[in-house]
Amino acid sequence: MVQRLRSIDITQVVEWQEGALRRFQDYLVAEEPMEIRVGGAPLSVTMRTPGHDRELAAGFLFTEGLIQRPEQIASIKEGADREPQSSDQAGAAGNLVDVELSGTEVDRERMQRNFFAASSCGICGKASIDAIRVRGIAAPNPGFRFDPELLCSLPDKLRAAQTIFGRTGGLHAAGLFSAEGELIAVREDVGRHNAVDKVVGWALLEKRLPLSQHVLMVSGRGGFEIIQKALVAGIPVVASVSAPSGLAVQLARELGLTLVGFLRGRRFLVYSREERLTP
Amino acid sequence: MVQRLRSIDITQVVEWQEGALRRFQDYLVAEEPMEIRVGGAPLSVTMRTPGHDRELAAGFLFTEGLIQRPEQIASIKEGADREPQSSDQAGAAGNLVDVELSGTEVDRERMQRNFFAASSCGICGKASIDAIRVRGIAAPNPGFRFDPELLCSLPDKLRAAQTIFGRTGGLHAAGLFSAEGELIAVREDVGRHNAVDKVVGWALLEKRLPLSQHVLMVSGRGGFEIIQKALVAGIPVVASVSAPSGLAVQLARELGLTLVGFLRGRRFLVYSREERLTP
Repeated sequence: MVQRLRSIDITQVVEWQEGALRRFQDYLVAEEPMEIRVGGAPLSVTMRTPGHDRELAAGFLFTEGLIQRPEQIASIKEGADREPQSSDQAGAAGNLVDVELSGTEVDRERMQRNFFAASSCGICGKASIDAIRVRGIAAPNPGFRFDPELLCSLPDKLRAAQTIFGRTGGLHAAGLFSAEGELIAVREDVGRHNAVDKVVGWALLEKRLPLSQHVLMVSGRGGFEIIQKALVAGIPVVASVSAPSGLAVQLARELGLTLVGFLRGRRFLVYSREERLTP
Repeated sequence: MVQRLRSIDITQVVEWQEGALRRFQDYLVAEEPMEIRVGGAPLSVTMRTPGHDRELAAGFLFTEGLIQRPEQIASIKEGADREPQSSDQAGAAGNLVDVELSGTEVDRERMQRNFFAASSCGICGKASIDAIRVRGIAAPNPGFRFDPELLCSLPDKLRAAQTIFGRTGGLHAAGLFSAEGELIAVREDVGRHNAVDKVVGWALLEKRLPLSQHVLMVSGRGGFEIIQKALVAGIPVVASVSAPSGLAVQLARELGLTLVGFLRGRRFLVYSREERLTP
């Protein structure tokens, strides 16, 4: 019915156009649950597009504050509970990433507590921002500069590198660019957060953190959690083709990240720290 | 700095256009964490756009399978931990919804277990679909019919009703339409799932469930969890302007929901149960 590749499914669709019907094969972005286990015990399950799963697990553990350094990962393996026994279960292979940590105790309630710890004033955006400060996240590289003209070239470079989007039209991308505007990593996923976690996880596993000389470009909105993940990775500039939220702008301002939105053609809006964008 | 309204923030931005800079006031969609408490104890925290919070809490409890009927809600109140003490904390007011249930024990591990219960074959898309079947979710109204020409009119109707999007360009919408193509409820949120939960929560609190004579139109992608929520509410047709995922298509096919994607102008794609779309 739905043929299964790794990141792309192929299926039969019906097109309706001005009352006329046509049937053809079309591509769909794949979406599967992935379980992250730490020390053999389940930690979280997320719906994601298969591919770069080790990076996703590493990036998730890092941006959520469960680990701080690549050395804390003793091993990180893709696997399955058991061998699939029929074609129906083929999707189960590789939907599990098993992480062994070294010298680190995982606090399994940490993600939940990140929200509640700082909520002595009740739960609010300010408490959410304070919770990030409490984790010791500092302002990213204040001396970093990036040419606005170069910034305008990033959306086309990102789109050109989106191999899955070109066939399915159905997912988000996160692209990491060097100070010279060169695309050095791009990851795609049905989930915006996952695309960012994959890019950051790649950098973690490659021992390239912090990303203090880099620009992150995301295809979707710049929401609070995207900015949070970028800050944890030390990224000084985040750009998006779309609108940020009010809380994302507050967070970017308070922690000193340059946040760009509506980056289209030769125009964009800057919500914070525009001094980094100089020719 | 960022002035706070309920769903919209106002802030100062810098526009860069062809090298020229301009400063002006702009609107941003608001994003704040909201805590749902059941019987006084925290159940979940979600980032959402403030507004229609009781509906969001009700819809979340219902679509996640924690309640099945509106009578199980004894009371549902918006509140704050304590009075805000400065303007910084104003956002805390109303970021809490307290639900008292009646005749129902809440299983706090249920959401997590939904994933793991059916995963004897390992965790995979098929297990995710089975987990929904296990909850007793049946095929939505098989006799429902909707005119394809009417379907093409829904995106414009939804966009016209998006009051926040018009000012901020930054969020998702879910619209519920009657069998005659009339928009009967629209909700906007930074989170796609939240917009759907708000619409379904509205229907639950208005005692209009199941929505067996209705079409749900969403502004974003048709992912697995959106289809799951629609199925729980008994909605027979879900349409989106964008692409669905492979797993969303599988779920729609296996449980008999009509799934439409790329609904733009007078063209759309149908991924399942096209027989419901007849003039």
